[in-house]
Amino acid sequence: MTRVVQKYGGSSVATPIKLRRVARRIRESMQSGTDVVVVVSAMGDTTDELIALAHRITSDPPSREMDMLLSSGETITAPLLAMALHAAGTPAISLTGAQAGIRTSHAHRTARIVDIVPQRVLDELALGNVVVVAGFQGATEEMDVTTLGRGGSDTSAVALAVAVGADRCEIFTDVPGVHTADPRLVPSARVIPAIDYDEMLELASAGARVMHPRAVEIGEAYSMEIHVRSTFDNEPGTIIARQREMEIRQKVRAIAHETDVAKVTLLRVPDRPGVAASIFGPFGDAGIDVDIVLQNVGHDGATDLSFTIAESNLPKARRMLASVAKSVQAQGYHATAGVAKVTVIGSGLRGTPGIYAKIFQALAAKDINIQMIATSEIHVTCIIDRPRVRDAVRALHTAFELERI
Amino acid sequence: MTRVVQKYGGSSVATPIKLRRVARRIRESMQSGTDVVVVVSAMGDTTDELIALAHRITSDPPSREMDMLLSSGETITAPLLAMALHAAGTPAISLTGAQAGIRTSHAHRTARIVDIVPQRVLDELALGNVVVVAGFQGATEEMDVTTLGRGGSDTSAVALAVAVGADRCEIFTDVPGVHTADPRLVPSARVIPAIDYDEMLELASAGARVMHPRAVEIGEAYSMEIHVRSTFDNEPGTIIARQREMEIRQKVRAIAHETDVAKVTLLRVPDRPGVAASIFGPFGDAGIDVDIVLQNVGHDGATDLSFTIAESNLPKARRMLASVAKSVQAQGYHATAGVAKVTVIGSGLRGTPGIYAKIFQALAAKDINIQMIATSEIHVTCIIDRPRVRDAVRALHTAFELERI
Repeated sequence: MTRVVQKYGGSSVATPIKLRRVARRIRESMQSGTDVVVVVSAMGDTTDELIALAHRITSDPPSREMDMLLSSGETITAPLLAMALHAAGTPAISLTGAQAGIRTSHAHRTARIVDIVPQRVLDELALGNVVVVAGFQGATEEMDVTTLGRGGSDTSAVALAVAVGADRCEIFTDVPGVHTADPRLVPSARVIPAIDYDEMLELASAGARVMHPRAVEIGEAYSMEIHVRSTFDNEPGTIIARQREMEIRQKVRAIAHETDVAKVTLLRVPDRPGVAASIFGPFGDAGIDVDIVLQNVGHDGATDLSFTIAESNLPKARRMLASVAKSVQAQGYHATAGVAKVTVIGSGLRGTPGIYAKIFQALAAKDINIQMIATSEIHVTCIIDRPRVRDAVRALHTAFELERI
Repeated sequence: MTRVVQKYGGSSVATPIKLRRVARRIRESMQSGTDVVVVVSAMGDTTDELIALAHRITSDPPSREMDMLLSSGETITAPLLAMALHAAGTPAISLTGAQAGIRTSHAHRTARIVDIVPQRVLDELALGNVVVVAGFQGATEEMDVTTLGRGGSDTSAVALAVAVGADRCEIFTDVPGVHTADPRLVPSARVIPAIDYDEMLELASAGARVMHPRAVEIGEAYSMEIHVRSTFDNEPGTIIARQREMEIRQKVRAIAHETDVAKVTLLRVPDRPGVAASIFGPFGDAGIDVDIVLQNVGHDGATDLSFTIAESNLPKARRMLASVAKSVQAQGYHATAGVAKVTVIGSGLRGTPGIYAKIFQALAAKDINIQMIATSEIHVTCIIDRPRVRDAVRALHTAFELERI
């Protein structure tokens, strides 16, 4: 008996008609003799509407109460999908995250899954039911409702797949899979048939929105195969799994980009222990995620320190910068909006001579200036002017021949 | 320390502005040093909207899934009110019915409360929190969500009041209390300051919508004082409690009416055991509530049997009547729409000579024909033509001088 967990995102379940369509797809899976657990998101914009409702009450709602409120979005979708399955002749039962045994930390709005006790899910599968679980939510040991933050439903799905011993976790979405680049920027971009967890993690972190890094991390930790597929056709999509070395290590896999980026530089920061903590501590406290951090070799006991943040956080960051710069005795600072991040990803970057040169030449040939460079074993990120992002992604996609299979 | 349970209905919590107003009212209760548990309904028309959503999926949704869906209405209101209380400086926490320990039977959509384990509620009160509980819902011992059917939130409130040892249960509503008659029909109707459980039960059953009979029954069983009050002012409203005999036994308390009524008569039904069961069994199975049943003394071994149902159920009833009449060998049947029920209620009816005469004379004086009469110790119900209902209620209100205190 095959067992799969399928996750359907908000746009796949946005209306009753779409829910009925999803029910038919699940029914097809059942008829091939497969146990199915389904994880659903809130319908369409429900979560945003609930947040707006809370903000009509107060600008600063307690996190615990927000979790109770927001969890209702998924708790509405789950029984509706179970009804649609019933109506299609497929026995089904809906469960909240708490009922499905998803136990989390107490960090409301950003809770982490601590454990899953899947007995109820297994019992319902044994009774022949499709089990529809409300995604994005769990409960503490005191049975207080929590939500899992960004990428929560993907995380619910992969974690449940591990807990129930599924053969794979299928993430159904409104795109046909993971692309070699954003097809809106690069018309010749194609779906990647198979990708390693590490590469997918980099891709997700570098701006590809199709899957959240947290869910990929869980998949990697437990070697759970994840399929990213379209809700609207039967194409195989992208398989995220541990790849055999030979097949993939030579390759660049994809070009990712991110446009909500601003760059901050602190000038001539004295080079002594604890400085980085003094800088990034306050940003963390203010809820500003710092992405890339670059610190070059210093001279005369001081160094320039640059980092990127989301441009949407720039106004908040500007209000803090003067005092942060003063606290570390920096000579000054500047903050630049309007940049973008372009990232080349692939296990093939490891130990391939000349690959950096190829990247920088491709950009230079288009007269694109590189403002910052950051690398790891499997990615190279360049910060460039935002208006050039399309040209940069296209140039790199062509340079590495990603349009070819 | 005083402890109260307050229940706010859907129209009292329909918008964020109304929720903030309710929060201020609760805050006033707190400042007088009172422990407060609040039970809330779904906002405005939320429940109807959720039902409509389900019916866009299927015409016959499973009850278990409907309960999961419908419970989200109250599960949205509760955290929003807790947020409004926080914003007003009052510590508060929201709980689902399950979290509040409300254990019910497995009868989805019409579950009965089996037990309340109020430990979490008591713990939160001890911490100084207002505890906001989602009404209308509970959970089975397997932690499946159930809803309590009509009057569910009133029932949650009175049952919780009993479980936490409250001094009273306050039902806040959009009317100032229980009236001597519907003030839209009788402008001189006034709020009844105090009423016995029995009388309130009759009144609720006879068409007064201000409180559900189930909740009154629980109040009576556990002698829990219930106050019915307006959300929008500070008037005392109506106190439902065991009354001292001397004060009330002489009085007619109120005139109730109900207009969604149809009358059915089976003609010359053979007078033998089991006939009534053969008639009402099929109606019960079809979900048609039968209200008043009248069977007169038979002659020649047969009798006419009349009963009333909601007129909204009449089309369904008509489809069954021919076969029901045939099965009991009735000579025929007729079904009449367009009637109404007018009921005089009061413990004073017991053993008061001449009271029936006074009722019938009041109606006769207005030339109102009585089609059926049913009585108990504390009520007299007359079935009349629907267009005369206003005249009948006014005539009776005047005859018993209910406009006087």
